[in-house]
Amino acid sequence: MKETELSGHISSQFDHELDSLRGRLLKMGGLVEQQLSAAVSILSEGPPQDADHLRGKEKQVNRMEVSIDEAALRLLVRRQPAAGDLRMLIAILKTNTDLERIGDEAERAAAMATSLLRKEHRLPGYHVENIRAIGAHVCNMMAGGLDAFARGDTRQALEVIRMEDKLNQDYAALLKQLLTYLMEEPRHAQTGMDSIWLGRSLERIGDHTCNICEYVIYVDTGRDVRHTDLKTMERHFNRDG
Amino acid sequence: MKETELSGHISSQFDHELDSLRGRLLKMGGLVEQQLSAAVSILSEGPPQDADHLRGKEKQVNRMEVSIDEAALRLLVRRQPAAGDLRMLIAILKTNTDLERIGDEAERAAAMATSLLRKEHRLPGYHVENIRAIGAHVCNMMAGGLDAFARGDTRQALEVIRMEDKLNQDYAALLKQLLTYLMEEPRHAQTGMDSIWLGRSLERIGDHTCNICEYVIYVDTGRDVRHTDLKTMERHFNRDG
Repeated sequence: MKETELSGHISSQFDHELDSLRGRLLKMGGLVEQQLSAAVSILSEGPPQDADHLRGKEKQVNRMEVSIDEAALRLLVRRQPAAGDLRMLIAILKTNTDLERIGDEAERAAAMATSLLRKEHRLPGYHVENIRAIGAHVCNMMAGGLDAFARGDTRQALEVIRMEDKLNQDYAALLKQLLTYLMEEPRHAQTGMDSIWLGRSLERIGDHTCNICEYVIYVDTGRDVRHTDLKTMERHFNRDG
Repeated sequence: MKETELSGHISSQFDHELDSLRGRLLKMGGLVEQQLSAAVSILSEGPPQDADHLRGKEKQVNRMEVSIDEAALRLLVRRQPAAGDLRMLIAILKTNTDLERIGDEAERAAAMATSLLRKEHRLPGYHVENIRAIGAHVCNMMAGGLDAFARGDTRQALEVIRMEDKLNQDYAALLKQLLTYLMEEPRHAQTGMDSIWLGRSLERIGDHTCNICEYVIYVDTGRDVRHTDLKTMERHFNRDG
C-alpha cells in the first residue's frame, strides 16, 4: 500500500469512528429528549404508565455518558486528530456532560410534576398552562439544539440561543405569579414550591441546551462564544441573516 | 542528541506545560473560592465594600475558563499524551466547566444574600444561622476539593464526597423550615424565596465540588466513578481507611 493510500485509509477509519461516536451522543440526546417530553406531558396526561421504563432510561443515559467519554478518550489516545476533529471531540465530551445534566433535571421535573398531581389542592389551571407552555418551548429548544448539533449548523444554533430570551421572560413571569400564589395561598406553599422547582428545572434545561449550541458554533467556526452576548454572536455569524 | 535524551527532553517539557496548566486551573479555583466565601460572608458582614472588585473577579474567571480550555486543547494537539496525562487533561477540561459554574452560583448566592439584607422584614436569625452554617460547610468542601485536586489525592476526594451527605441533610432541613416560614409569613414570601434560592445555590456548589472530586479519583486511579454510590467507591479505594 502506498503511503497516501495508507494515510487515507487511516483518516477514513478515524472519520468513521468519529461519526459513530457522534451518532451515539445523538442517540443519548434522543433518550434525554424523551425524558424531557415525558416530564412535560405529566402535567396534561398524568404520570406515565410505565414509570419503571423511564427510570430505566435514566440509568441507560448514565451508562452512555460514561461510555461515550471513554470512547472519546480512546480516540484521542490512539489518533492525533487535527484541530477541527479535536474540536469535535472536545465538543462531544462537553455536550455529553450537559446532556446528562439535562437528564437529571428532566427527572427532577418529572418528580415535581407527579407530586403536583398528587396534591389534594390542585394548582390553578392558568399556572399549569404557563408551566406547560414553558415546557413546550424548552422541548422545542432541545429539538433544535440536537438538530443543530447533528448538522453542525451555526445558524440553527444561534436560533436556539435566541429562544432563550423568551424562556427567561416567561420563567421570570412565572416566578412572579407563583410568588403571588405563595402569598395568597400560604396553606398550599408546598404546591407553590413544587411548581417553582418544576419551572426552575425547565429553565436549567434551556440553559444546558444553549451550552450545547455554543459547542456547535465552536466546532463549526472555531470560535469560543461562551460569555459572549447574543448581539455580538449575531454580528459575527449572521450578517446576512 | 540520543533518542532517549530527546524523548526525555520532550516529555519533561510536556510535564512542565501540564503543570503550568494545572497551576492556572488552581488559580482560577482560588478566585472562585474567594467569590464563594465573599457570598457567604455577606449574611454576617453585609455587602462587600468593593462590589465592583467582585464583579471584576467574575469576568476574570470567565476569561480564564476560555483560555484554560484553549491551552488544554493546544497541548492535546501538539503532544500525544499517554493515558495518564490524557486523563489529567480531560479532568482539567471538565473541572474548568464545574469551576466556572460554581462561580456563577456564588454570584447568584451573593445577589440573594444582598437582597435579603435590603428587606425591611429581616429573615429570622435562626434561618440566617442555618444558611450560614451550610455556607461554611460548602466552603470547607470546596477548599478540600481544590486541595484534593492539587495533590491528586483520592482519599481526600472521597472525604469531600462524604461531606455531601451532611450538606444534603442540612439543605433538606432548611427547605422544610423555609416552607413553614412561607406558610406562616405569606407577606414575606419574597424573603422566603430569596433564602431558598440562596440555599439552593450553595447546594449546587457542593454538587459541582463533588464532580471535581470524581475527576480527581478518575485521574488518580483511572476509574470513572460517576453514577457510583459512595459505599461502592469506598469499597474500592479505601479498604484500610
